Amino acid sequence: MFTLQDIADALGRPVEGDGTLTLRRAAEPSAAGPEDLALAMSPSYADALARGAARAAILWEGADWQAMGLAGAVTVPRARLAMARITAALDPGPELAPGIHPSAIVDPTAEIAPDAAIGPLCVVGPRVRIGAGTRLLAHVTVGADARIGENCLLHPGVRVGSRVTLGDRVICQPGATIGGDGFSFVTPEESGVEKARRSLGATGEVAPQSWTRIHSLGSVTIGDDVEIGSNATIDKGTVADTRVGRGTKIDNLVQIGHNNIIGEDCLLCGQVGLAGSSVVGDRVVLGGQVGVNDNITIGDDVVAGGASKIFTRVPSGAVILGHPAVKMETQIQIQKATRRLPRLAAQIAELRAAVAKLTGGDGA
Amino acid sequence: MFTLQDIADALGRPVEGDGTLTLRRAAEPSAAGPEDLALAMSPSYADALARGAARAAILWEGADWQAMGLAGAVTVPRARLAMARITAALDPGPELAPGIHPSAIVDPTAEIAPDAAIGPLCVVGPRVRIGAGTRLLAHVTVGADARIGENCLLHPGVRVGSRVTLGDRVICQPGATIGGDGFSFVTPEESGVEKARRSLGATGEVAPQSWTRIHSLGSVTIGDDVEIGSNATIDKGTVADTRVGRGTKIDNLVQIGHNNIIGEDCLLCGQVGLAGSSVVGDRVVLGGQVGVNDNITIGDDVVAGGASKIFTRVPSGAVILGHPAVKMETQIQIQKATRRLPRLAAQIAELRAAVAKLTGGDGA
Amino acid sequence: MFTLQDIADALGRPVEGDGTLTLRRAAEPSAAGPEDLALAMSPSYADALARGAARAAILWEGADWQAMGLAGAVTVPRARLAMARITAALDPGPELAPGIHPSAIVDPTAEIAPDAAIGPLCVVGPRVRIGAGTRLLAHVTVGADARIGENCLLHPGVRVGSRVTLGDRVICQPGATIGGDGFSFVTPEESGVEKARRSLGATGEVAPQSWTRIHSLGSVTIGDDVEIGSNATIDKGTVADTRVGRGTKIDNLVQIGHNNIIGEDCLLCGQVGLAGSSVVGDRVVLGGQVGVNDNITIGDDVVAGGASKIFTRVPSGAVILGHPAVKMETQIQIQKATRRLPRLAAQIAELRAAVAKLTGGDGA
Repeated sequence: MFTLQDIADALGRPVEGDGTLTLRRAAEPSAAGPEDLALAMSPSYADALARGAARAAILWEGADWQAMGLAGAVTVPRARLAMARITAALDPGPELAPGIHPSAIVDPTAEIAPDAAIGPLCVVGPRVRIGAGTRLLAHVTVGADARIGENCLLHPGVRVGSRVTLGDRVICQPGATIGGDGFSFVTPEESGVEKARRSLGATGEVAPQSWTRIHSLGSVTIGDDVEIGSNATIDKGTVADTRVGRGTKIDNLVQIGHNNIIGEDCLLCGQVGLAGSSVVGDRVVLGGQVGVNDNITIGDDVVAGGASKIFTRVPSGAVILGHPAVKMETQIQIQKATRRLPRLAAQIAELRAAVAKLTGGDGA
Repeated sequence: MFTLQDIADALGRPVEGDGTLTLRRAAEPSAAGPEDLALAMSPSYADALARGAARAAILWEGADWQAMGLAGAVTVPRARLAMARITAALDPGPELAPGIHPSAIVDPTAEIAPDAAIGPLCVVGPRVRIGAGTRLLAHVTVGADARIGENCLLHPGVRVGSRVTLGDRVICQPGATIGGDGFSFVTPEESGVEKARRSLGATGEVAPQSWTRIHSLGSVTIGDDVEIGSNATIDKGTVADTRVGRGTKIDNLVQIGHNNIIGEDCLLCGQVGLAGSSVVGDRVVLGGQVGVNDNITIGDDVVAGGASKIFTRVPSGAVILGHPAVKMETQIQIQKATRRLPRLAAQIAELRAAVAKLTGGDGA
Repeated sequence: MFTLQDIADALGRPVEGDGTLTLRRAAEPSAAGPEDLALAMSPSYADALARGAARAAILWEGADWQAMGLAGAVTVPRARLAMARITAALDPGPELAPGIHPSAIVDPTAEIAPDAAIGPLCVVGPRVRIGAGTRLLAHVTVGADARIGENCLLHPGVRVGSRVTLGDRVICQPGATIGGDGFSFVTPEESGVEKARRSLGATGEVAPQSWTRIHSLGSVTIGDDVEIGSNATIDKGTVADTRVGRGTKIDNLVQIGHNNIIGEDCLLCGQVGLAGSSVVGDRVVLGGQVGVNDNITIGDDVVAGGASKIFTRVPSGAVILGHPAVKMETQIQIQKATRRLPRLAAQIAELRAAVAKLTGGDGA
């Protein structure tokens, strides 16, 4: 239970109308009942709101709340930012009391801050350090010598490998795996794939060989305020750590291979994959299913559209798209021309026939 | 141990020959021994069967079982449907007795149906309700206020988040994660990616900003008879629930972002990704690695071939393919023309030279 | 702590200079201090090394270690192979004593080799057999009748399904899931996707139908020396086992559907997906995010570049790239021509105008 005034305070905005309205939950305008707070931050919701039963709403700036039959409202200038503040205010978060659950297996050499919470059936390895206010929900594993900062939240089934460092306020969604071994193998002699890379094609004769493992002596360092999605994977570095910078958000099923260095305040959307040893700048946004080849440099403020496949260096500020990724405006031209390609092919055939007739040749 | 008659009964078809044959397991025709049931529902298996040691087989309609040296057979009109019934009859399923394993941690406020089975080292949160006949194998986590219907099967390591609703007969493969938080962030001022979307290209000046989290107040609702693959992820909705309709089957490593609404009887194959806020109709089939941008509408009965990348609305009944996805027949024409593209480019150069000669110009 | 001589012995190479140097860890040349072993196997590191504080290094063959101010060095002919040996020598590996942790739940019918290690909160099912020297770290689940060979290492949260067979020295990274059920469903009558495949396009009238499950009677067989990445998934076969051959290495988030047969010494990089029922030869390298349609045959020694989408048979030795995948050299030509496509389209329009003028027609 909360009042409209509570939400106005969270938003730092004045109440218009009755701030004492008592509300039970947030709801979409069409589904909102008289005890719900309708979230209607765009004029496109006006009709639904007028038809609905809501008495209180969050509205776009300049909205006429009285005309929509509301008893109270708060208007906001930037809808998604308001959404962040409202949802943060109304999310009760997980229920887990501080302390170590009796079913957890915590190595005696681990140092757990007194008000941290270690949930049921967690396993915490030797010499681990866990900071104040951090919560591990059920079934989390933390490997030897890992360090987890303050006020982190690790959801069920998160795996933190040995020697991993997490900053403060890091959130790991269920099943996120930080610190698996890097995928790094070598054959005694040059392999087919090395030959193919060198020659851009022919592998020639390839003697049968097996792969020898390159172990990961490095680990993973995650900055403050990073979020890592469900079942995402971040591998250890070979010698130095794989790194993810402060404030970067990583979505579900993202793969970050060994030795990648990711900057600050990036967004890596669902199923993005970075092969390894790439360097990504700050404020980079990679859309869903983007792929990044190994040893690529991506500058600051790059935006890559969904499913872009990046094989070459990307300069700062570039907006790219496609497979392979090129500048978005170039890609849009290419896609238009590609859709016309069957027609263009027919036109070329016609032209060749016409020119052959004109020149008396066969056009071949 | 089972008899040929048992299988005939499961298939609702008559036995031809000896129904009392006692069999140990199903096998491929070439590997089937005298105590195996050979699965040979296509004429292409006739030779392997004649050469093999099988005495009993499931055959295509009209097959001459005696000519192949069998002692008994059942013929079927639709091979894969027969396979469904045979494999269901022969699958013993997991071994787990009803009741709560003593090592499981079950909140005292949870309501578990008396004949449900909660496996070893499961964690079930406060106010959870679990229906009759439902089985949680080992290491499953169920968050606060989740509701799981009847006769569900949750394999090891499944994570069910808070307030998630699963219908009846839902199957979750190992590591499936239902109800992680949605991937939803906002910057105080317009971000580079918002600018790029608005302008389809240029981001212009981007002031450094950090991302603020939009919490997930919604959860996930999964209909009856849904199956969710290993390590697949389905995120909570922002205000309302993310929804998956009755009878839809979801393969391994599929990502369903927040606020998606998926219809009934769909197939989402391996590694499919839906960014968020899309609406997918009924009986839609998305091949492996298909990607769906955010805020997309896909009609009923759509089929998208493997690795299709969907950026625009798809009408009901469409069969699409490619990156970006277009009608399959258009895509096949595009691919043919694309393979000829280097040759077409050479032909254009020749044409330009020929026409330049004819016109006396330089063709540029 | 180790000496330069220890590393030289691991590499089978002579020490140049002082072999008694005592070292603490391996480091990158620019970060290496006086107690670190600098890994500088390429001349590109010469400057960093000369400027740095390292006293010992691993160097490229023919390097002048004294000129770089080192006290001792070992030179190697093949940098990555040396890296494999050095990192193996310096990796202490996980800390887990032999024996069954008291918190593990092991079925009394399971046979665990006396020196195997079953970590905290593992669950091992009935009739499982686990070989000598094998280690299960925390939270691992092993289903009924599974067989795990000798000297395997299963990281936290690995799921091994019922009847799965792992060879010797298999490594499973955290969250890897081997032996989920295959994704295999059938409708009573022909479905829309079957019609689309048959007609390459039109689905025509599709009667609403639901999917019936084909159960997995087969399981998964993994050869010796296989490595399986974090949160990767390998599904059971329908009748026979899904198979992965000896020495094959599988990266994070790879999906191997039911009935696939993968050869020996392959590399399957991050997020690769194989739909099902494909046969892959030996020493095949599939780059990150490669997709393989169902029922595809891939020969030996094939190399597929990152994000290749494979829809047709690939002969042995082929080097392929693109979506759809074609020979790499063809793909490179296609990509060049595609980038010029908007310009080519303009040229065709010009040519048509010029030819129309020449012929007196309209060029359409």
